[in-house]
Amino acid sequence: MRYVLAGLVVKVAMCGVASAQTSVETDTLHYWKEVSRRLVMASLSKPGAFDIVSELSTKAPARLSGSESFKKALTITRAMMEERGFENIRFQPVIVPHWVRGNVEKADLFDANGTATASFSVCALGGTVGTPADGITGRVVEVRSFDELRSLGRAAWGKIVFFNRPLDPLKLNTRHAYGGAANQRNLGAIEAAAVGAIAVVVRSLTLSLDDVPHTGMVLYADSVDRIPAIAISTHGADLLSRLIRENTSSELRITLSCENKGMVRSANVIAEIRGRELPQEIVLLGAHLDSWDKGSGAHDDGAGCAQVIEALRLIKEIGWKPKRTIRVVLFDNEEMGVGGGLAYRDSVVQNREKHIAAIESDHGGFAPRGFTYEGNSPVSDRVLMLRSVFDEISAGRFVKDHPGVDIMPLVQLGITGFGLDPENHRYFDYHHSDIDTIDKVHPREIELGAVAIGLLALVISEM
Amino acid sequence: MRYVLAGLVVKVAMCGVASAQTSVETDTLHYWKEVSRRLVMASLSKPGAFDIVSELSTKAPARLSGSESFKKALTITRAMMEERGFENIRFQPVIVPHWVRGNVEKADLFDANGTATASFSVCALGGTVGTPADGITGRVVEVRSFDELRSLGRAAWGKIVFFNRPLDPLKLNTRHAYGGAANQRNLGAIEAAAVGAIAVVVRSLTLSLDDVPHTGMVLYADSVDRIPAIAISTHGADLLSRLIRENTSSELRITLSCENKGMVRSANVIAEIRGRELPQEIVLLGAHLDSWDKGSGAHDDGAGCAQVIEALRLIKEIGWKPKRTIRVVLFDNEEMGVGGGLAYRDSVVQNREKHIAAIESDHGGFAPRGFTYEGNSPVSDRVLMLRSVFDEISAGRFVKDHPGVDIMPLVQLGITGFGLDPENHRYFDYHHSDIDTIDKVHPREIELGAVAIGLLALVISEM
Repeated sequence: MRYVLAGLVVKVAMCGVASAQTSVETDTLHYWKEVSRRLVMASLSKPGAFDIVSELSTKAPARLSGSESFKKALTITRAMMEERGFENIRFQPVIVPHWVRGNVEKADLFDANGTATASFSVCALGGTVGTPADGITGRVVEVRSFDELRSLGRAAWGKIVFFNRPLDPLKLNTRHAYGGAANQRNLGAIEAAAVGAIAVVVRSLTLSLDDVPHTGMVLYADSVDRIPAIAISTHGADLLSRLIRENTSSELRITLSCENKGMVRSANVIAEIRGRELPQEIVLLGAHLDSWDKGSGAHDDGAGCAQVIEALRLIKEIGWKPKRTIRVVLFDNEEMGVGGGLAYRDSVVQNREKHIAAIESDHGGFAPRGFTYEGNSPVSDRVLMLRSVFDEISAGRFVKDHPGVDIMPLVQLGITGFGLDPENHRYFDYHHSDIDTIDKVHPREIELGAVAIGLLALVISEM
Repeated sequence: MRYVLAGLVVKVAMCGVASAQTSVETDTLHYWKEVSRRLVMASLSKPGAFDIVSELSTKAPARLSGSESFKKALTITRAMMEERGFENIRFQPVIVPHWVRGNVEKADLFDANGTATASFSVCALGGTVGTPADGITGRVVEVRSFDELRSLGRAAWGKIVFFNRPLDPLKLNTRHAYGGAANQRNLGAIEAAAVGAIAVVVRSLTLSLDDVPHTGMVLYADSVDRIPAIAISTHGADLLSRLIRENTSSELRITLSCENKGMVRSANVIAEIRGRELPQEIVLLGAHLDSWDKGSGAHDDGAGCAQVIEALRLIKEIGWKPKRTIRVVLFDNEEMGVGGGLAYRDSVVQNREKHIAAIESDHGGFAPRGFTYEGNSPVSDRVLMLRSVFDEISAGRFVKDHPGVDIMPLVQLGITGFGLDPENHRYFDYHHSDIDTIDKVHPREIELGAVAIGLLALVISEM
């Protein structure tokens, strides 16, 4: 009953807005369910996404923007696009920072006699300045928020600030738990430098209690000193918190050999299937090709790259020539400044390209649940009318939420953005760390995400 | 708009069927969303399901019905129920088969000269007869179906039948893929013995291509010989298939030291919270305490046991005294004959106990998606009206499908059955094998399944 009603609503709405509807009008829901079924058959009979992420993780792990591994990733993914017969394959120039972790990243605690009492599992945050070879040493001030830090006044002067606010386990969505703690890592060094601190230690942004430190970008401001910034594992954070309370004269020594090597030339990778009727109108499928230099970037965002390439392959595989152009963009430098997303946005503006929607996959390669989206638009309204089609592949949950970092510059131009929204409980366990590796990716889960992206791309392309 | 409409529909419908609605009438959806929120807060602030499955997997792994480990599991779970303050805690007698795997399970291929050409990763199927100490040897006949086997006529006489039909990867739901191949394991020995075969080898029931054999029950019939039955890993199955085609005079030798040791006394474990108004009416939460004797039965069905215990704890934790009795049953012997489920059904009939619904968790401890259900009833109708409440905890997918093996005897009496339906792509990778271990269980995923079960129990209890 409800099903039939929903179908009628869709037909009325689509007739109302569309000028050139063809067979899509006749029975919208049944039609799209059949398209979905064909994508599922094409994908599960010969799944391709896992092969892509496996090759990328193995041949170009730790693809930090500006690194040699990232250059390999450019070559590998371009070749993948050529093999699959995509059109207009090209590199788009992007200028990116070249930061090198080095081989020393240590944090050791000493008592007043200079005896070592603990050695922590830490890593440099991406982009941080290094320390002198003999490290930087100071007492530790633990805080949970910027407000608490500011309220300390001069008490943090000359000290190491330890940001130890955990992710909130009560958030059902782990991305929201992450979002609620991430400012410590992003902005902690600026806030701490503003009160005269000499370095920062940030609790790793994960809900797991373990010994794995999680990196991520640290920002600096010209108005304050650039001070070294490290992440500490969650077990380590709990231990450090305990030890500095038990011995208030403890001092922490941080040693980092990382280096900022200036800006270098790099690129986004772009390919497409040209539209059959409106080739100048674009539906963008995006993911970021760079990863952190820890682990192999399997979920973040090797999985997303694999899914958007596979989505385009599936569309070709079922013999579909889309009405509008469907374009895959593998963005450079999401992790260290969104350089790829901004360069792409600039070229869109400069060339007056018309984008109907941008779909990003950057939340891991787990089983899809639906999409986040941003932008109140006829595009999202019409997609939501087809929610029951996505329900059949267990991807029918559409929630207004951040769609993805790389496409945000486009969303800010008014383009409707969608983000693949997979099961996410495990994502931040691995995120930005040594354990974001291919064994955490499941071939069927990542593949069905590609199906969901392909289906959404076709639905929007045919509007 | 739709939300308000749905709310109205629920209210109208519930007024129509319910005789003693109290505050539930006033704003049903908001009310249950608040209940759900409290369960989520109680669970994520102090999650308990993972602790239970971890203790069970560590202290009583490989809890095969009839084994010493199963007896330990009885003691452990009874103590857990006492610690949590449940009521009417008791063992319910069940008679179960006692089968012992032994320490020899081998399958080796030889050429016509008696030279070994391959040794496969295999395991005895549960309940199989053993072989003489020097094994049982014969040529191998590969088939994909019982029809194919029967069409061979006398060609299988004196041979080893190799059932090699893979799970269908095109099924979106892996349980359906499993269901489509499971008759080879359950009934293969009967079918093969009927055509004079001397043993059977069954391709492991998993979509993974690996070296892990997966056990499971084999059935025998009195009308034919009881012949030895083993599972072979999927890699092994592919290799065996190739080798017997390449060398048609190859012979396989199967050696098993397992033994059937007759029937022994065992038990279900039962506990409850008594209902405040209708204590004689029962909402059952079930899972099976026995597991296979490979791995530690973490997902199958340690996770289910943990979830139903945790669901009852959460109900107490939020201070709810349910209208009807909510009862937890940890069933014995799901894996080797459903003895526990049948014994429970018999006692229900004998004592004329009234069950409103039975909810089982036996599909793994992954992130919940919803419930399967069976039985067209006012109970399921009313639960489905509250689907949007379950959607908020990402468990709003209600699908007519098999709810669970242990509660099927109750469902056959006309009682509405529900089965927790979690994300299932990874489940059969581990199922019935050495790798069904605690490291595959995620603390948040299993916990949210317990929340979904607790919520469903309360919704039904208050009807």
